[in-house]
Amino acid sequence: MALDGRIEQAVVAALGHAKGGDAPPRLAAALDHAVFPGGARIRPTILLSVAKACGDDRPAMADAAASALELIHCASLVHDDLPCFDDADIRRGKPSVHRAYGEPLAVLAGDSLIVLAFEVLARAAADHPMRAVELVKILAQRTGMPGGICAGQGWESEPVIDLAAYHRAKTGALFIAATQMGAVAAGQDAEPWEELGARIGSAFQVADDLKDALLTPEEMGKPAGQDAVHQRPSAVAEMGVQGAVKHLRDILAGAIASIPSCPGEARLAALVTAYAEKMVPVHLTPVRG
Amino acid sequence: MALDGRIEQAVVAALGHAKGGDAPPRLAAALDHAVFPGGARIRPTILLSVAKACGDDRPAMADAAASALELIHCASLVHDDLPCFDDADIRRGKPSVHRAYGEPLAVLAGDSLIVLAFEVLARAAADHPMRAVELVKILAQRTGMPGGICAGQGWESEPVIDLAAYHRAKTGALFIAATQMGAVAAGQDAEPWEELGARIGSAFQVADDLKDALLTPEEMGKPAGQDAVHQRPSAVAEMGVQGAVKHLRDILAGAIASIPSCPGEARLAALVTAYAEKMVPVHLTPVRG
Repeated sequence: MALDGRIEQAVVAALGHAKGGDAPPRLAAALDHAVFPGGARIRPTILLSVAKACGDDRPAMADAAASALELIHCASLVHDDLPCFDDADIRRGKPSVHRAYGEPLAVLAGDSLIVLAFEVLARAAADHPMRAVELVKILAQRTGMPGGICAGQGWESEPVIDLAAYHRAKTGALFIAATQMGAVAAGQDAEPWEELGARIGSAFQVADDLKDALLTPEEMGKPAGQDAVHQRPSAVAEMGVQGAVKHLRDILAGAIASIPSCPGEARLAALVTAYAEKMVPVHLTPVRG
Repeated sequence: MALDGRIEQAVVAALGHAKGGDAPPRLAAALDHAVFPGGARIRPTILLSVAKACGDDRPAMADAAASALELIHCASLVHDDLPCFDDADIRRGKPSVHRAYGEPLAVLAGDSLIVLAFEVLARAAADHPMRAVELVKILAQRTGMPGGICAGQGWESEPVIDLAAYHRAKTGALFIAATQMGAVAAGQDAEPWEELGARIGSAFQVADDLKDALLTPEEMGKPAGQDAVHQRPSAVAEMGVQGAVKHLRDILAGAIASIPSCPGEARLAALVTAYAEKMVPVHLTPVRG
């Protein structure tokens, strides 16, 4: 099955479990709203690509890892959109969860998705308990404190920001989770895969900064210009548009060079290159102030 | 070591990990604020009591389970206190996390504590991976959707409440987690321990309803009379004070009768009896409207 089919099937199965039993119907609907239709599912795609490059000898475990990672990403979007953070009315072209279901259910939807992510990994463990435990560890490390996306978001409430720690945690963490969880799901060590994830994460951060600065809300499917509004650190603010584009290309070249030796190395390099081309689209020309 | 010493040591170790590395300092402080000083640590005490009754052959795993459960409980308090839920200014006699650190860090502190709970279990897994995986499953099931405390809180956003599902999930879930995780950490089956947890949970729910209706905010260490303010279902509203007190005694008698046969059965029965006496204190006489 193609990767996107595997990912959707795994995410649908996870959500089906969470919506079963005596689930309160509106919270169940809020979970669906948060997860479907998805965005590009980039993190689980990278995860499964790495798993395949490593042999993918336990596909059920790789699928569980992919859906767990996507659930965490969706949870982070729901909470980041809350009024106390970005106060975003739209996400992926439709109302944000708190706009559609109210703030209480948005908080609970995020919480439930975080929990579900770990449950999915535990339920896939019969196959290989030690790999499942390792996946829980990596996902937790890259989600919570001190170095996960919660920590990354937390830096935005600090009077003085440690920029390196901020970027590493805020955007880098889930890309590192993607490459490391893909490797671990397929029975490989996590450590050699950290650099690739970190570099892809940096590239996405710079690409996001470029999009936030240059695209319209319609093109984004969510509010644009938020970095400037919230005075958040941004590669564009720091080095200008052309500087940021050059920086992005450098990071991606380094990412490809960092891919550990594995059976599917060439294919993985091609995938990163394809992402790179999408990240610096030709229409990235200034359209706003 | 006495149970409360074990619990504090385990929780301190878990928090120490989360505050290490490059942690953003204010979020790290918010985590501390959410967890220390603790309340009665009732859930982890029940967990360790069950583990001891079952032989406690892997105390490190029981300690990890106890701290994970307490972290989830603390996370739920932080999120329940948010303005969109109870909007509580005080908790355990001091400012709630969002009053002390702001709403963004309160959301993130709750998220981080949820993640940390699962990380703690995974980090204790070297000892016995299958038990750790089972602990992750139980904790997730009793925390998230469709039947955990997130689901329980979610029922409060429904136009029509399934009262049985609501109580089972909102208060019962983490007590069931307590008895089942205690058993599993000590190598026993989870299933026979569900009824005890459910009954203790029901008892605490009724006791909480009584306290909310009868105590002053000073006695509670948090706002009182919230059930009436928020028109939440309550045993007191349903059956009056005397009816609720009788119901509480019946539930506790059933709880003691439900304890599965195990080496520490008598001691566990004595513990539940001691809690029962604390739950229906003599000064529970009407002091408000």
